[in-house]
Amino acid sequence: MGAQGQPSERPRARELGIAPGIFRPGPLNAITDVPGVRVGHVTLILGDSVRTGATAILPHGGNVFQEKVPAGIAVGNGFGKLMGSTQVIELGEIETPIVLTNTLSVPQAAEAILTWTLRQPGNETVRSVNPVVGETNDGFLNNIRARVLRAEHILQAIEQASDGPVPEGNVGAGTGTIAFGWKGGIGTSSRVLPEALGGYTVGVLVQANFGGILHILGVPVGQELGRYYLKEVVEDTSADGSIMIVIATDAPLSDRNLTRLARRAFLGVARTGSPMTNGSGDYAIAFSTAPEVRRTPERRAGVGTYRELSNDRMSPLFQAVVEATEEAIYNALFRAETMEGYRGRVEALPLDRVQEILRKYGRPP
Amino acid sequence: MGAQGQPSERPRARELGIAPGIFRPGPLNAITDVPGVRVGHVTLILGDSVRTGATAILPHGGNVFQEKVPAGIAVGNGFGKLMGSTQVIELGEIETPIVLTNTLSVPQAAEAILTWTLRQPGNETVRSVNPVVGETNDGFLNNIRARVLRAEHILQAIEQASDGPVPEGNVGAGTGTIAFGWKGGIGTSSRVLPEALGGYTVGVLVQANFGGILHILGVPVGQELGRYYLKEVVEDTSADGSIMIVIATDAPLSDRNLTRLARRAFLGVARTGSPMTNGSGDYAIAFSTAPEVRRTPERRAGVGTYRELSNDRMSPLFQAVVEATEEAIYNALFRAETMEGYRGRVEALPLDRVQEILRKYGRPP
Amino acid sequence: MGAQGQPSERPRARELGIAPGIFRPGPLNAITDVPGVRVGHVTLILGDSVRTGATAILPHGGNVFQEKVPAGIAVGNGFGKLMGSTQVIELGEIETPIVLTNTLSVPQAAEAILTWTLRQPGNETVRSVNPVVGETNDGFLNNIRARVLRAEHILQAIEQASDGPVPEGNVGAGTGTIAFGWKGGIGTSSRVLPEALGGYTVGVLVQANFGGILHILGVPVGQELGRYYLKEVVEDTSADGSIMIVIATDAPLSDRNLTRLARRAFLGVARTGSPMTNGSGDYAIAFSTAPEVRRTPERRAGVGTYRELSNDRMSPLFQAVVEATEEAIYNALFRAETMEGYRGRVEALPLDRVQEILRKYGRPP
Amino acid sequence: MGAQGQPSERPRARELGIAPGIFRPGPLNAITDVPGVRVGHVTLILGDSVRTGATAILPHGGNVFQEKVPAGIAVGNGFGKLMGSTQVIELGEIETPIVLTNTLSVPQAAEAILTWTLRQPGNETVRSVNPVVGETNDGFLNNIRARVLRAEHILQAIEQASDGPVPEGNVGAGTGTIAFGWKGGIGTSSRVLPEALGGYTVGVLVQANFGGILHILGVPVGQELGRYYLKEVVEDTSADGSIMIVIATDAPLSDRNLTRLARRAFLGVARTGSPMTNGSGDYAIAFSTAPEVRRTPERRAGVGTYRELSNDRMSPLFQAVVEATEEAIYNALFRAETMEGYRGRVEALPLDRVQEILRKYGRPP
Repeated sequence: MGAQGQPSERPRARELGIAPGIFRPGPLNAITDVPGVRVGHVTLILGDSVRTGATAILPHGGNVFQEKVPAGIAVGNGFGKLMGSTQVIELGEIETPIVLTNTLSVPQAAEAILTWTLRQPGNETVRSVNPVVGETNDGFLNNIRARVLRAEHILQAIEQASDGPVPEGNVGAGTGTIAFGWKGGIGTSSRVLPEALGGYTVGVLVQANFGGILHILGVPVGQELGRYYLKEVVEDTSADGSIMIVIATDAPLSDRNLTRLARRAFLGVARTGSPMTNGSGDYAIAFSTAPEVRRTPERRAGVGTYRELSNDRMSPLFQAVVEATEEAIYNALFRAETMEGYRGRVEALPLDRVQEILRKYGRPP
Repeated sequence: MGAQGQPSERPRARELGIAPGIFRPGPLNAITDVPGVRVGHVTLILGDSVRTGATAILPHGGNVFQEKVPAGIAVGNGFGKLMGSTQVIELGEIETPIVLTNTLSVPQAAEAILTWTLRQPGNETVRSVNPVVGETNDGFLNNIRARVLRAEHILQAIEQASDGPVPEGNVGAGTGTIAFGWKGGIGTSSRVLPEALGGYTVGVLVQANFGGILHILGVPVGQELGRYYLKEVVEDTSADGSIMIVIATDAPLSDRNLTRLARRAFLGVARTGSPMTNGSGDYAIAFSTAPEVRRTPERRAGVGTYRELSNDRMSPLFQAVVEATEEAIYNALFRAETMEGYRGRVEALPLDRVQEILRKYGRPP
Repeated sequence: MGAQGQPSERPRARELGIAPGIFRPGPLNAITDVPGVRVGHVTLILGDSVRTGATAILPHGGNVFQEKVPAGIAVGNGFGKLMGSTQVIELGEIETPIVLTNTLSVPQAAEAILTWTLRQPGNETVRSVNPVVGETNDGFLNNIRARVLRAEHILQAIEQASDGPVPEGNVGAGTGTIAFGWKGGIGTSSRVLPEALGGYTVGVLVQANFGGILHILGVPVGQELGRYYLKEVVEDTSADGSIMIVIATDAPLSDRNLTRLARRAFLGVARTGSPMTNGSGDYAIAFSTAPEVRRTPERRAGVGTYRELSNDRMSPLFQAVVEATEEAIYNALFRAETMEGYRGRVEALPLDRVQEILRKYGRPP
Repeated sequence: MGAQGQPSERPRARELGIAPGIFRPGPLNAITDVPGVRVGHVTLILGDSVRTGATAILPHGGNVFQEKVPAGIAVGNGFGKLMGSTQVIELGEIETPIVLTNTLSVPQAAEAILTWTLRQPGNETVRSVNPVVGETNDGFLNNIRARVLRAEHILQAIEQASDGPVPEGNVGAGTGTIAFGWKGGIGTSSRVLPEALGGYTVGVLVQANFGGILHILGVPVGQELGRYYLKEVVEDTSADGSIMIVIATDAPLSDRNLTRLARRAFLGVARTGSPMTNGSGDYAIAFSTAPEVRRTPERRAGVGTYRELSNDRMSPLFQAVVEATEEAIYNALFRAETMEGYRGRVEALPLDRVQEILRKYGRPP
């Protein structure tokens, strides 16, 4: 139960020369370029109708409940079932793995997080836990109403999370997603600031299930391909669906500045052509892994010493998030393969034609 | 499995003459005085260690997913696991029953809401549902880490919800709660505006599990009883624990004015002596049952006609919420009986002594 | 032009034994108990119709623009013309004096703050300043439409600000205000935490111009005096009018925790009997004077070291704000004297009768 | 005093074939395509050092205080001195003209709005007014510290506001602004939905004074021109400066949906290459002119009937705002001419080179 699909053989955007922005990515061009961050997927493909999964992002490899990380959340469009937001906002911290999954499996994801957290050594007396769960709706390819994904599956995603390269495309929480009318999925990217700007790393992971008028590097690919939101000039909901964005950084940021960082992710989303439609649940969650701002038991016990980057130094990090979000979305689309599922078939973005179109527009240079 | 306790024989506050404010209550002095509102409890008392439950509030007796109600949410202190908040805020509406339960059973409550909603006739093609779940932590009387309460239990609370009088005290989500160091629980109250002010009804239901320095009608009962937050002048967490507040009204209000209404609930909380401590998850959710503002399929299909009360007419409703919240909290305390549980025994508020104290302060008049 | 009224000879609440809460006040029982805080008033009483003024609160005696203080803002009810809020929220800091004045003199107050800030040594190249101005409406006693108060007057309030005792009642921004149907004004109070809880000081200053059903120490004084909101059971606006609350502390708090602190002020307001009516602009602004969190040029230049109190230690400070806000409001009412003005006469709260009423209710003990 | 510059002879973006998006503009391609909306500028160019002004936007030609319009505000980055925001958010309405000006002239703009509002027939007894003022910082070309712009100037902008074509570029509040290192200014654009989507008009006006890495139709013009944020890989503030965005529509929207509409403006900003830097005050204000949602005295007196577009119909309007904001920014840059001022000279965007660059990238098609 729970057959993992084969790794995608499709290229990442950057392998085709698509490199948005001015900063360079980290070695993996993934959220795991931020030291300590771990990602795990569980993919559930069963028969003709189950195409779903979950993706877990761990801020670090230790006990996150005991060693909380400062965090912020931004809501682009709140048509989504994000769980845990009010406590993150109130206390400015995350104390669990973040799990992404499908809309109707949020309870199971929360249950898995609780089970995992209560079991961890050192948490024997813990009685209050704030699971952070995001979702998008994979109800076209996946028989979402069947609610086949269970807490036990999702627990695997948490337990098997690791550093290193991150599988993209039809995997984990991206298994059954759709973006811009093409097969969507999980994508990731990162940016490293020059040393003169602090040398910090920003990593982004997206669960892309949203829509609009697809642009790649500013080129109106959606229109060229003849598939885009409102093409038929009728009200439809094809651009609904949501995007969940998780941002990690090793820059030592306050929760307030992490919230500001999270807000910039939507600028990256905008560059791919989304108007954040009514039915799209568009959220960004940002956390810092920097030891200088970690909420350790010592710091939480009274007056703690923190070293934080000032407001005035935030702008390059903002730029990095915009770039990495844009590229992570491309990676989700580029790596995702054609899939048949519950209510039909969704084609992968046709990369040959995309490259042709880009060339027509002089891109990549 | 799931033995319901006997109904409390303790009096409600008003039976002892305790009647905060200037407005009169409705016939039941309960949230169910708002026509259409239904409340259901499931109470789980097992052996020495399980003392928990859930309480469901249904905005009306129809299909809430199809006939959504405008709603608003206010966060007093966000140390809580409220689920569903971002979508309620974004769209200004609630589409499910509201369920209150214990901190670690939020996933089960959400699952129950999903099951119930997906099953309802007319919802056969629904693939996105936003469950609204609130919680407080009953981990002293209840072995909360055991997570014994399941979705099936909670489903009963939804299914058995009814109008009429609302059981209070050690019932449903209030089964294992503690307030001001005494046994807490579920409480409810209502207010009816004079006809000249619109004649609207406001009903409040609370899950009282919070603390501070107990005041009743302004009398410092906590200090007189020698039990209050910071009595020992050491930092402790005895005032933590949370209060969930659900507000219903038949006044035709926009979601914005329902949000404003929700915020006033904390003024009622304040009058009972809470400083909204760091560890308290203090939330208020308000909805309107008025047909004039209901989000029917017709209205949601395009341009809809609504009849809404203006900003300028809100103030008496604000006053009503303050009063009903204050009294609902008293009812939670007054009706709750002494309970032994997982980690010890929690006494009911000693009403004889409370009456003595009140008399000393000339209350009730 | 600009005759200052004589100091009030009426007692402060505490002199009559009215001492809400469990903590003791600081030596002055004023916001100026927080070291460094300065307060200045300008009072403008002219002929029959001008009864207004402004009150300036300086976070410290240095160059606030260069040495910014972390700060937070809470909106109880946003029917008010608070200026500067979005930048305070975004950056988490205040960089100017805070000025309170009348509704239509906010521009003049902002102009005065700009003039003062641009002139200060060290600010020669400053080209962007975020003035923080609050207001309430004194348009009954004051011919507010005449807009007689000018920036030059308000500049005096800033320039003459000093530490030490703070004049209360009909002074500065409280000159023409009304509260609960009686003469309102400026009031202040403070609390000092026990050493075991950190020993921090919290000071509050209010501009009281609001209404509701007056309670003092929980006693329904408004009803006993026969003057209260909705007494006549007709919709009126007598409870409108606003309260501005400024909170200072020497506790080393992050901007997020200062925002949380600010929110608690409304719990103190609630205890005096306000439902925060529709037409009331109810705001609280909190800042920390602690050097450990000050936004100095050095810290703002890159990565700065801060020492901050943890979330878990906030609750006693929350309690302190509730108490000091409640008492500051009493002081505003107790110290304000009967005034005749533009549209009539407003009586001072009759303290003899208040004391009688309190005694009837066993208060003060 | 107050010489208006000559009208710009430079073309608008669309005249060069630059037409972002899928919807067509209205007849004027301006915010004044929304019936009733009026715009007025005052431009102050004095000697070598004064280069500033103000721009007033009137929601309709009547008494806006009496006939308020529903409105929403979105904060992209709150480093700005927006005035009036909390009341707009609380009550969901605007009751005055909106004025844009320079950072240090916000008080004068507010004063002008007050004067204008108090003077209007029908407002004789008005004593509380909520002016809405936005600003950006023109302190390079303008000697902003001199504060030469007075309320009397700004009053002219309000009084002379008219429908019809809107002057763009170095005019009004855009007189001294800079964008992406080139001369910025005022720009405007509009979109009309197809009849099948409601046929509504959305108009946008921007005061462009911000930065980043300029993109036009997705083409990296900034990099091609060798002028962009972080080019030198040192921390600088060249991308700071702010953008104020005003959005009008005749779609009958609730304040909540206007707030959502306002948020989408930043997606348009993103497409031009801004990361919303730390020092940028990025705000969007949206209002509806539809009679069906206007806050008339009758509706405000009690229960009012409104006809509102549902959530489900919002997405095409969101798309329209993205497009119109993007194009309004281009217009600001395209129409602004080279200017010498206080601290130096700022070149106009070199349109010949821009066209060359666009052609290289196959744009416009």
